[in-house]
Amino acid sequence: MNGAQTLVSTLVDQGVDICFANPGTSEMHFLAALGENPKMRSVLCLFEGVATGAADGWYRMKDKPASTLLHLGPGLANGLANIHNAKRAASGMVNVVGEHSVSHLKYDPPLTSDIEGLARPLSHWVRRAESPDTVAWDTAQAVAKASEHPGQIATLILPGDTSWQQAGAAPVLPPTAAATRKTPRAERIEHVARVLRSGEPALIVLANKATRGAALEKAGRVAAATGARLASQFFTARIERGAGRVPIARIPYAVAQATAFLREFKHIVTVETKEPVAFFAYPDKPSLLKAEGTQVHTLVEADEDSQLAFDMLLQALGASATTPLVQARIETPVPTGPLNPASIAHALAAALPEHCIVVDESLTTGRESMGLTMGARPHDLINNMGGSIGYATPVATGAALACPDRRVFCMVGDGSAMYTIQSLWTQAREGLNVTTIIFANNSYAILKAEYANMGAGSPGERALSMIDIDKPRIDWLAMAKSMGVPAVAVETAESFYEAMARSTREPGPCLIEVRL
Amino acid sequence: MNGAQTLVSTLVDQGVDICFANPGTSEMHFLAALGENPKMRSVLCLFEGVATGAADGWYRMKDKPASTLLHLGPGLANGLANIHNAKRAASGMVNVVGEHSVSHLKYDPPLTSDIEGLARPLSHWVRRAESPDTVAWDTAQAVAKASEHPGQIATLILPGDTSWQQAGAAPVLPPTAAATRKTPRAERIEHVARVLRSGEPALIVLANKATRGAALEKAGRVAAATGARLASQFFTARIERGAGRVPIARIPYAVAQATAFLREFKHIVTVETKEPVAFFAYPDKPSLLKAEGTQVHTLVEADEDSQLAFDMLLQALGASATTPLVQARIETPVPTGPLNPASIAHALAAALPEHCIVVDESLTTGRESMGLTMGARPHDLINNMGGSIGYATPVATGAALACPDRRVFCMVGDGSAMYTIQSLWTQAREGLNVTTIIFANNSYAILKAEYANMGAGSPGERALSMIDIDKPRIDWLAMAKSMGVPAVAVETAESFYEAMARSTREPGPCLIEVRL
Repeated sequence: MNGAQTLVSTLVDQGVDICFANPGTSEMHFLAALGENPKMRSVLCLFEGVATGAADGWYRMKDKPASTLLHLGPGLANGLANIHNAKRAASGMVNVVGEHSVSHLKYDPPLTSDIEGLARPLSHWVRRAESPDTVAWDTAQAVAKASEHPGQIATLILPGDTSWQQAGAAPVLPPTAAATRKTPRAERIEHVARVLRSGEPALIVLANKATRGAALEKAGRVAAATGARLASQFFTARIERGAGRVPIARIPYAVAQATAFLREFKHIVTVETKEPVAFFAYPDKPSLLKAEGTQVHTLVEADEDSQLAFDMLLQALGASATTPLVQARIETPVPTGPLNPASIAHALAAALPEHCIVVDESLTTGRESMGLTMGARPHDLINNMGGSIGYATPVATGAALACPDRRVFCMVGDGSAMYTIQSLWTQAREGLNVTTIIFANNSYAILKAEYANMGAGSPGERALSMIDIDKPRIDWLAMAKSMGVPAVAVETAESFYEAMARSTREPGPCLIEVRL
Repeated sequence: MNGAQTLVSTLVDQGVDICFANPGTSEMHFLAALGENPKMRSVLCLFEGVATGAADGWYRMKDKPASTLLHLGPGLANGLANIHNAKRAASGMVNVVGEHSVSHLKYDPPLTSDIEGLARPLSHWVRRAESPDTVAWDTAQAVAKASEHPGQIATLILPGDTSWQQAGAAPVLPPTAAATRKTPRAERIEHVARVLRSGEPALIVLANKATRGAALEKAGRVAAATGARLASQFFTARIERGAGRVPIARIPYAVAQATAFLREFKHIVTVETKEPVAFFAYPDKPSLLKAEGTQVHTLVEADEDSQLAFDMLLQALGASATTPLVQARIETPVPTGPLNPASIAHALAAALPEHCIVVDESLTTGRESMGLTMGARPHDLINNMGGSIGYATPVATGAALACPDRRVFCMVGDGSAMYTIQSLWTQAREGLNVTTIIFANNSYAILKAEYANMGAGSPGERALSMIDIDKPRIDWLAMAKSMGVPAVAVETAESFYEAMARSTREPGPCLIEVRL
């Protein structure tokens, strides 16, 4: 076996069986090895930001890392923005970055760059595979690192000669251990139990693994037993929500609304997250969103086990038998008439099928009205954790590959969609069940509000021309067609609903342009 | 004035009067300042790789830096691949990267990253503007750095509070001095003169500023006087070529052809470049391309003045009055029939109008047949110096803005075009005279050859499926339409010619899909 074959075989043995790839010359042996190994699925992406975002989406739904194949330093660079988003979402991934062979590097050929330097700011672990004889251990360690809780970004640099030189048979390494989650500290449990028993208004802010599954259900019992409210940050890696799930309030995005929301709480209890902070800094607005005098209590650190913490907390509260409040199903009638945030949310609430996945990068259009979908059929909601625009279409791609039986609704603003629009091609190629919903307001609409929020006054004609993206208007039907995705434009709430409903009945991707 | 206004005013005072921008919330004051300053032109890009590539194209044609506006670390990251290409092309640019205000950073909000860490591997100069009172000096130094010879990448990080806080009037700083080029070393001139007088076969390899203007003309005199041949590397930042120009041979890309080309020379003389090296490393192929026994002589280092060096050399040779050989005009008949590399090159040779600009990222289709356009009307040829795919459509965008009276032909493979296809939108928005020529072979065709070159054998079905991009076929007419660019598909040499000729008669962008 050569080094590339050993690498792929080790990835597969360690449970990483998909690779989102944008290969180049220096990765030809790796590409060959991917193709030869029947247990490895390779997914071609036309831009590296699609590959890294798809790996993020895969992790969000599978809780295990995917791999990516990137072409030297610039290929890694193209993937970095979505690596940033994945890192902030605690999504593990294994990036394999091709590199010139050692003997060639000293001549400084054109594609040479400081790959370690580019990788380090956004990776938890970076290594150069120096030899085909050790690449199995390097790979196993990359997978182990990526599989930690919270998930980590592991970047393995693969020089050409390591890739093509022969080594012995791939060593059989022990499989990657399941991620261990640290035990929460008992004194914190006791402390939070006292806080919650005090009867003073308390908000429990859940994140990462605590917004789904048993942890969420147990958080619901705590809330039911104590009267504490449950919330998430405005952005969360993945929330299980809708009918039958424990409902979580969403701390608003805008500073004024967030501080108003938080004002009523004397205590904020954090679970796998920190206290709420503003997304951006604004002149004359606070960075921290809590009211003066509100106390913040850490219940669960990011690397601790929130399910166990809630078990311990329920025990301390003597409330283990409490039944959680769950969200009732709300049958939303199909809305009619003009499209606006409320009618859009109602159409979503009516259309979302059971167990679908919603990837949200809708910014101005969708994000303040998500409360209207609380009683929809049970679904998963995925947000952008890093704030780098262009995350949704790749993440939807990866989520659809992770969950082929579930439809993915990717809600994205027109400006945001243009960063990584190449995702549509991979969705068509792989026949993925993704309904991309483009909110076409022909504007970076969020920036219009932010311009004023920043105290920059109201934008003049020239500044405004840098915020509007209506000259030319993007033709979304043509864009979808160009990459083999069927598309439809809608101008009323009922046609929006109908387009979504239709998309759930036909396999494969489609795109809905919501004309605003 | 606030810090942002001071920054923009200093940029303009120092001669940087265009900004390729993809702004976000933290850059609203900078956006306002751009809009207020009538001497500054702002060009909106829908993806940061378009902005940095356009700045590269601007520099290639203007020999002076443009600025970019990028949104925090991830926005910079999206621009890095084309910054890499610009750096390798010795194109200066000033990147302004927005950042959270100092007081907000300690809360580690979602968009926080190590911007300096991301910037350093591909920047020559990185600074954080700490205060509105000093931002003018920071900016002037960024411009000075970017304006050096060879051009440099300067990255200025602009925190929100530096941007929005008031400072005094912008100080009037001395304008950036013209880039000084170091004087070549006299002993090297003498040495090379002896080499050239020896009558042994010699090749003079020209790069950067030596492939155009007076330097090229003088290199032509040296060649005429001594019998030395002139060549460029396979990729060159910008060559003035065609009828009436001193012709330069192109060292081939493929290792076997390059070594065959170089074998006949006993001496290689380098001018603003190094000796030829292979683009990639291959098992069992050399990295250095010269024959054993060939001697390499440095005539001009990258930071030295090649025009002056050729003056000195002509004097040492007693050949200052020699007339250079120049390329004769070759009237190429309009080709007819099937499209192939030769008929494509003939169509180009017939169609290229005087003083047009050709940006080449055609890879397999165009690059081995450029010899057939040597006798075309005089034009400039621009290549990708860094090897990161996706450079051509942004560079063409910047070149067209730099030279509004000249048509730009952007020749790009279909795979390559997809990396930064958002350029089309900016071309439509600005009404740029760019003819984008998509060579649509529905494949990363170069990788098919490279697969074999790498000794990976012939690709199996699964590996091949990762090299072909024909499922689905990209619909280029729809893609162009989606971003407001008129398009036509051609399937014969004569229709390709006719489409190019027509594009030169109508202002604004268009796209030609060459169906292969």
